[in-house]
Amino acid sequence: MHRDSGQPGRTCTVDFRVRYNECDAFGYLHHARYWYYLEQARTELLRESGVRYRDLEEQGYFFVVYDARIRYKRPIRYDELVTVHVRVERIGPMRVDHAYEIRRDGELTTEAATTLVCVGRDGKPRTMPETLWSAE
Amino acid sequence: MHRDSGQPGRTCTVDFRVRYNECDAFGYLHHARYWYYLEQARTELLRESGVRYRDLEEQGYFFVVYDARIRYKRPIRYDELVTVHVRVERIGPMRVDHAYEIRRDGELTTEAATTLVCVGRDGKPRTMPETLWSAE
Amino acid sequence: MHRDSGQPGRTCTVDFRVRYNECDAFGYLHHARYWYYLEQARTELLRESGVRYRDLEEQGYFFVVYDARIRYKRPIRYDELVTVHVRVERIGPMRVDHAYEIRRDGELTTEAATTLVCVGRDGKPRTMPETLWSAE
Amino acid sequence: MHRDSGQPGRTCTVDFRVRYNECDAFGYLHHARYWYYLEQARTELLRESGVRYRDLEEQGYFFVVYDARIRYKRPIRYDELVTVHVRVERIGPMRVDHAYEIRRDGELTTEAATTLVCVGRDGKPRTMPETLWSAE
Repeated sequence: MHRDSGQPGRTCTVDFRVRYNECDAFGYLHHARYWYYLEQARTELLRESGVRYRDLEEQGYFFVVYDARIRYKRPIRYDELVTVHVRVERIGPMRVDHAYEIRRDGELTTEAATTLVCVGRDGKPRTMPETLWSAE
Repeated sequence: MHRDSGQPGRTCTVDFRVRYNECDAFGYLHHARYWYYLEQARTELLRESGVRYRDLEEQGYFFVVYDARIRYKRPIRYDELVTVHVRVERIGPMRVDHAYEIRRDGELTTEAATTLVCVGRDGKPRTMPETLWSAE
Repeated sequence: MHRDSGQPGRTCTVDFRVRYNECDAFGYLHHARYWYYLEQARTELLRESGVRYRDLEEQGYFFVVYDARIRYKRPIRYDELVTVHVRVERIGPMRVDHAYEIRRDGELTTEAATTLVCVGRDGKPRTMPETLWSAE
Repeated sequence: MHRDSGQPGRTCTVDFRVRYNECDAFGYLHHARYWYYLEQARTELLRESGVRYRDLEEQGYFFVVYDARIRYKRPIRYDELVTVHVRVERIGPMRVDHAYEIRRDGELTTEAATTLVCVGRDGKPRTMPETLWSAE
């Protein structure tokens, strides 16, 4: 089952309780900290596929964010429980696109998308392990 | 001079030294933390116009990020000095668009753009002080 | 049961998965971010007692940290699962002392202690709700 | 002059403008984020001695916090300018103690102290470069 771990269409859902330290003076989850949730959701998506991101890094594969977009449709507040849905949109040997939705009680609060590039320890683009992107 | 504080075309430049705590395991400035620099650059843009963002909040004007995009063209590393350029692209009674460039030794590392909406203490859209957006 | 919510001896245990963004260039949980876990553990301790910290703040009770000590006996690394134990050591009308232990697979990694003071919206010390500190 | 870079008594002073993202819902600098300022102050203390912390890490010397204490005597708020004073209290081949004071307009707001241990890439204690701790 690990062979299709990163195939387009794979999804994962992770719950987060908004921590006090993550909020701003207005009591809203600070806009920068959404990216922490999305990053963690990617980690859990990989884990469900049997891959630990920390193992990838130990093997010299690093995934750096190249492009990111986000729309904050409704605020998220301290102590709320939200659900992050992450989905692999496209994947190739050196890059992967994810799409994200955050919902609170089913209501869509946030939409986002990222492009990540696989690089080696030298920071140069590198083909990721074939099991991550190959359909077969 | 304060009257044109938010007019399109206004710019501000702020230097940042990348702190250890802002970097990830790869030694790169973590992609989420760029937004802290961009937010601070907006604060300094306002300050140069004679407006303190904290005064706006005390008067019940809050600026929340509605939309954000960023492209990480080159990594930024621990202890590097970078310069953030922020520019007001468009401004109206309830929203303002900014564009950003980050440079290191003159070289462009990052491009970003945001749309902010002015809201009141109740979180509902609110017309910002006229001095911020009026051309005259 | 709510009446003894903050009594000395009350404990709570919360699990945390160390996120990528919480680690430093050495791959360790950054020493400052332990405090985020400890704060969240206090929130959960209150919640188990039937009190939501955000409700306290809405009612004008804020708990600010006055004194804090921590000993990092063993490092905690990215993606590890740790358990935070928090315990109310002493509580009075205006202050509360907590002690903390963090364990990974049962092994003690960290010990900490804090003193919090209850203040009002004006930042001045304030008697906390009696249900929080009264033994009866 | 580099030879006495870490000698007891060496001090350094660094100014910080409190950023919006560093504050909590109460408008105070979040108690965990003081540690970011103190860490940065240590980095600048080293830099003034001609040593870049990132060079130390590249050479395989890492300084991890073993023990930390802090007393928050007065709150620090968003957008305030504060001054961090750091001083080397004791230094030996494998550990260094620092003391810190934070002041706002000369008024003492915070006192802290840390013990750091030098470790190698394997996380085991390691003698730091002699130039850092030797008196002569």
